[in-house]
Formats: sequence, structure tokens, C-alpha cells
Amino acid sequence: MPKINRLDSTQTDFMVRLDELLAWEGVSDEAVTRAVTDILADVRQRGDAAVLEYTARFDRLECHDLHELEIPQTRLARALETIPQEQREALERAAARVRSYAEHQKMSDWCYTEADGTMLGQKVTPLDRVGLYVPGGKAAYPSSVIMNAVPAKVAGVPEVIMVVPTPDGVVNDLVLAAASVAGVDRVFAIGGAQAVAALAYGTQTVPPVDKIVGPGNIYVATAKRMVFGTVGIDMVAGPSEILVVCDGKTDPRWIAADLFSQAEHDEDAQAMLVSPDGAFLDGVAAAMDELLTEMPRAGIIRTSLADRGALIQVRDMEEAVQVANHIAPEHLELSVADPETLVPGIRHAGAIFMGRHTAEAVGDYCAGPNHVLPTSRTARFSSPLGVYDFQKRSSLIQCSPAGAADLGRTASVLARGEGLVAHARSAEYRQDPDAQP
Amino acid sequence: MPKINRLDSTQTDFMVRLDELLAWEGVSDEAVTRAVTDILADVRQRGDAAVLEYTARFDRLECHDLHELEIPQTRLARALETIPQEQREALERAAARVRSYAEHQKMSDWCYTEADGTMLGQKVTPLDRVGLYVPGGKAAYPSSVIMNAVPAKVAGVPEVIMVVPTPDGVVNDLVLAAASVAGVDRVFAIGGAQAVAALAYGTQTVPPVDKIVGPGNIYVATAKRMVFGTVGIDMVAGPSEILVVCDGKTDPRWIAADLFSQAEHDEDAQAMLVSPDGAFLDGVAAAMDELLTEMPRAGIIRTSLADRGALIQVRDMEEAVQVANHIAPEHLELSVADPETLVPGIRHAGAIFMGRHTAEAVGDYCAGPNHVLPTSRTARFSSPLGVYDFQKRSSLIQCSPAGAADLGRTASVLARGEGLVAHARSAEYRQDPDAQP
Repeated sequence: MPKINRLDSTQTDFMVRLDELLAWEGVSDEAVTRAVTDILADVRQRGDAAVLEYTARFDRLECHDLHELEIPQTRLARALETIPQEQREALERAAARVRSYAEHQKMSDWCYTEADGTMLGQKVTPLDRVGLYVPGGKAAYPSSVIMNAVPAKVAGVPEVIMVVPTPDGVVNDLVLAAASVAGVDRVFAIGGAQAVAALAYGTQTVPPVDKIVGPGNIYVATAKRMVFGTVGIDMVAGPSEILVVCDGKTDPRWIAADLFSQAEHDEDAQAMLVSPDGAFLDGVAAAMDELLTEMPRAGIIRTSLADRGALIQVRDMEEAVQVANHIAPEHLELSVADPETLVPGIRHAGAIFMGRHTAEAVGDYCAGPNHVLPTSRTARFSSPLGVYDFQKRSSLIQCSPAGAADLGRTASVLARGEGLVAHARSAEYRQDPDAQP
Repeated sequence: MPKINRLDSTQTDFMVRLDELLAWEGVSDEAVTRAVTDILADVRQRGDAAVLEYTARFDRLECHDLHELEIPQTRLARALETIPQEQREALERAAARVRSYAEHQKMSDWCYTEADGTMLGQKVTPLDRVGLYVPGGKAAYPSSVIMNAVPAKVAGVPEVIMVVPTPDGVVNDLVLAAASVAGVDRVFAIGGAQAVAALAYGTQTVPPVDKIVGPGNIYVATAKRMVFGTVGIDMVAGPSEILVVCDGKTDPRWIAADLFSQAEHDEDAQAMLVSPDGAFLDGVAAAMDELLTEMPRAGIIRTSLADRGALIQVRDMEEAVQVANHIAPEHLELSVADPETLVPGIRHAGAIFMGRHTAEAVGDYCAGPNHVLPTSRTARFSSPLGVYDFQKRSSLIQCSPAGAADLGRTASVLARGEGLVAHARSAEYRQDPDAQP
């Protein structure tokens, strides 16, 4: 039977043990920080030349012109034609569903006018240019191309630039096909901190972007943290997590597969099950034992469950919800008969999968909501990636002469209270409604 | 005449000089980083005891119990009664206007159901607890208490905890009064990196928060950057900026005062004026010369204008808008007759002040929109502080049996394409619509 932590909310050290399991610090060590700092500075200063050197060194790709590393739209289109039809249809369907969900998130302008004619409002504008990082090699996920690029295009971003490393020139047709389906505008076969630097600062060939999104290894994550401020970034994601809350009446094999679907991501992934039914927890453990034999990634699953997984017995469903709110999971599966009765009590979760028939996996690929979600308890204060991450707001203020005079009085009182006389004067000049500017 | 940079868009090196003026790196040096790292670790480990020690050392306040440093609501109420009536009324009016604007930003839940009964949606929840940092001493601005606390309360945050250092026990009644008006729930007289650490990790006396907002010195800014991830933070702000775009027909004294209202903040603040009318730029320079004599903070204004200010002549208003979009200013004043014709062309600005009668100062205090705005060109990808910064979203997915079967097919194709067999199995289990969970 795969080793997995067993917790019980009646144990006195329950919360302590739970917090130990949840503890995660994605700290990049000094060596990584130093390496990334140098790469960023080098690319910022030397542009293309530096990117070409690092690509030759890390991806074993020798080029003399960065333009050679741009993958043209024709190549993306060919990839889409090359892959099996069922995969092409699945990609197109996933993109269409992600797009229609995203349409609901679009923000729009608003304003209102007050009695004296003063207008206040908010203007919404898409970002000019967005960079999308896509990992190369085995961790290359076409689904994350769709999840990152589609909301940006729905937001109205004119130019989405994807970077994806192609070590030894190996390209992933499924990833290129996804880029075509998602409407990515340009693709460069570069990766690592050098790709992040190229997007953040721009080079002779790669135009600078305003925001960089997408997953990556520790070098990429560290580089994103460092360029934050020069450009926007999405959240720096920790390992993926699922918390299944079950009343004990779902087929244990279904729940075992749901837990494995997290655990198989990597050794650090976290899969947890909470239930008031102890016998059910045993049943799921047995089902996991059986299912494990069919899993090509059994080794990863074993390590993940042993190190970070847990079967948690609670007193009742009410306590299960409390535990869920404390964990603030990235993925929360409510495998119960009447999930809608539990949802109002859920305060923190990236995505909530309601009911026995709703597997997290459908959310990962094609349900519609984004699979880029807050991890490591950050659902307490952050949201899934969405269209709103690719739009920004500007406040609008238009004072009528009467409004300027009226508000000017209040402003000058507060400005003088703060000792800011220029602020006061600037407001006072507009105080006479008949003042001729 | 105060020294100020003079640029002309017809100069060949115009963009180079402009970018030199805009360049700003808020880098915290190694000494600061090391000091803050130690303080964070110490407070995280020793809690109250560490906070008390640092408060004694940096604020010269000797206490033996952190509870002594909590400022009770009764004290806030007394401050509100103590200050002059016109200030009290101004604070209350400002808070009321910020509140009514913020109400327009509230996000709410939504969902839709598909033909096969599958429901997709988004649930909105306020943060549980927010920390608000307020600088002590001279930089203590009651207006920023209102601007940070009011949106959090409008969002429905149950507990807003304010920290404000009181060096030598000196408290600012205007700040405490603002806290009372804004509905701050608890106030602690602590500051610096130790206060940020207390809010991020929690101590025996200070409860841990989910997000920390508010301005602060380099130690506070560095601490906020470091605790990001454990808690959310607002943007780390750079120096304040204004860009005035004027057709040359506004009273030069008004524009001079508007530029000064930025420049008086601090030596690093940036005040720029763009106009196609060279004679008008001279007129504003002359008006600044005159007005400067009335300014208590003339020294700061002189340095700010000489180092970072600029009078920029452009070919026409169209080019003025291009320059504005390149600068992506925190505050953009459109001092023209018909600002509504320019606004559609503005892509990047924190707040847009429309028309000759709309002084930035009214926006700083009482117009309604928030005065916490993206600085240093970050308006290219970020927004003013708002209610949406204190709410977060959770995706909702509820598959009907038919929907689970249908979506499961697509999910399993993509999962197997990514080599994630557990994902595929988890989806496949739900593929038979008659499957009994």
C-alpha cells in the first residue's frame, strides 16, 4: 500500500502536523540567484548576442542570428495539421471553452455624473504586449499554452509573444499546435532566465513586453521575481495541490484517481483527502494500492504521497469545511451529494469542483475556468489567472467648475493639514466657479 | 527661475533624454536587505519580544507588553473630536466620497449553466484580514489611511489592522482621526520591518493578516517584497509623478501649482509638462518662479524640478498623447478644452484628470477615486488600488453526469497527450453517464 500520512482532527497535535505538511518555501538558493542576476544583466546590456550565447550553452543550439530562433506561424499551422485529429479537435474544443468562460470576465468602462456636473469613472485598457513562458522538454504542457494565451487575447492584447526552449532543437508539435489554436502572435525558441530577460528588457529581435506569465523552473521563477516592477508577472507558483472533501459515499477508485492526478505532477505535489468516514479513508488507501500498478509515473506518485499527501479524518462535514478554509487549496473537490450547501462556507480556494462527477482533470483541460490557480495557501488573497490579469484600469476625474470649487475647499483643508501648500494652492486656484482658467 | 529640464521632440536625442529622466530603480542596497532579513527572521521566531526590542531601539519606546502599544478605538474617537471641525468634516467627506466611488468597483458572483446541465461560474470572497502600514512622523498622511482602508471595508474585509510607528511616543491625531473615519478595526503603534513581519507572520499579540498595503520607507518596502507570497502586498511604489498635457490655454499659474503639487512631495518626485506651445512653457516657467517664493517646501521643489522635472515641447497634441503613453504616468492631467477627445487615445495612466478645472490635488484627497496609483511606468500593466484588491475569485465547476462524460473524453485525450495517465483515468471514470459514483 503506498505510504501516506494519516491525520485525525481529534489528535491534540493535529493542527501542528497539518501545518508541517502544508509548509512550503520556494526559496531559490544563492547560486541560482547569482546566476540569474548575471544573465539578466548580460541580456539587458548585450541583447541578442547574450541570448544566443546562453541558448548555445544551455540548449545546445548554435545560431548566429536570433531571427533563426523565431518559429513562424506557418510552422505552428503545420504542427496543428500534423498532430492526430482527435488531439487537434480536443485542443480546439478546450480553447473554445476557455474562451467562452473568459468572455464572462471581461471588465468594461463605467462612469457616473454628480449633481454639479462632476464626472467620475474608470477606463479599462488591455496590455500592449504580453510574454508567455512555456517550459520545454517533458514538462511541456499544451494545455498551459491555452490557459495563458486565451485570456490575454480575450482581453484584447494585440501581441502575445511565446518563448519555449527547444533543447537540441527538439520541438513539441502539441505545444506549437496549442499556440496556433490559442492565437499566439509570435514564438521564439528560447528559454530560461535569458528568455525572461529578453521579454522584460527587449533585445534587437525580441520586443519588450509589459507582463510575463507562465510556469517555469527555479531559474525562470527567480528571473520573473527579479524583473517584476520592470514588467508585471503572474503569481510565482508553488507545487500543485488538491484537497478532496468527501462524505464517504463516492467510489473510492474515483477519489484515488483524483488524488493521483495531483500526485503524478511531481514529487512536491500535494494530494489530500478529508472525510468524516474513517472506513472510507481505508477504502481509498486500498483503491490507491490497486490503481498504482497501472500508473506509469508510480514512482513520483509514491514519493509525493509519502512526503506531502494525507488522509485526514474529521468529526463532521462542518469541520471538513473549516480544514479546507485553513488549507486554502489550489483545487478543492467537494465530492458530496449536495455541494451547493457547502460552497457558501468555502472562503479560500482557487477552483471548486462541485459534486461526485466533477473531476479536477476536466478543469485542468477543458471545462472552461483557468487551470492557472493560486497555490501554497495564496488563495487566501489571490485569484485564478483571468482576463482581468491582462486588462488594467485608469481612474477618470472631470470636475465641473462648480465641482472644482466645492471639492477644492475640502482638498485644501486636508492638504494644509498635511503641510502640502502647493497641493492646497493648486486646488484653491479652481475654487472660484467663475475663475477663468 | 527654478532650474528644470527642457526637452523638444524635434531633437534627435529626444527619446534618449526622456528615458534618462524617466529611469528609476528603487533598489534596496545590501545593507538594507541584510538588516530586514534579520528582523523578519527574528520576529517570525520570537514574536512579541522581538517587536518590543526593535520598537525600543528604533522608536525609543520602552514597553514590556505589546498590548501597551495597541491604540484603542476610544483613543481614535477622541482624536476625531480633538481635531478642528473643518478637518473632521473634510475627513468625513473624503471618506464618504472614496466609499461611494469604491462601491462601483465591487465584484460579485456569476455563473451560467450549459445545455447538458453543467454549471460554470465564479465566486467572490473578501480577504479575511488586511494589514495597513502607515508611516509615522512627517510623512504621516491621513489621506492615505482613508485611501487604503476604505476600499478594504467596502470589499467586506472583516478586520483591517493598521500599524503606525510613533517615535518617542509622538502620535498624529489627524492620522488616528482618519483611522476612525475609515473604519480601521485595530491599531498598533509599531512600524518598520518589524511591523511588516508582525503582520505577515503574526505574533502572540498581533494576528497574522492575508495582505499588507500602504506606503513606507525603503525598510518597509524591502520587508513587503520579502514577505510577498506568505501574504499578498500592494504594489511597491516608486516616487510620485505627474504629467500635465496642456494646449497652452490654461492659466500658467494653475499649471505651475499643479507641477509643484508633485514636486513638493520629495526630491525624487517627478513633474512634467507637455505642450505644443513653446511660449506657454516659458510662461509656466515664469509662473513657477513667482509661485516658488510662497512655497514652504521650496527646497524640495527646486531639487525635484532640477533632477527629474521637465518642460517638453511637442509638434502637436497628437504627439503629446504619444509621449503620455510612453511615460505611462501615475497622474495624467489633460488641461485642455475638450479632454474627452483625447481620453480614447490614452492607453497607460494611473488616473486621468480631465479639463482645466480638474486639479490633481482634488484626486489626492476627496474626488473619490483612489490616490494609490501605479508609478514608474507600471501603469502599463497595473491599476489603481481598489475594492478588487481586497476581494478574490474562486472558479466554480459543477459537471452534470452527461457533462462529465462529454468533457471527460476531451480531457483524457489531452491528458494522455501530456503523458498524465492519472488525469486521464480520473476523467474516464466519470465517462459513463450512468456510472454510479
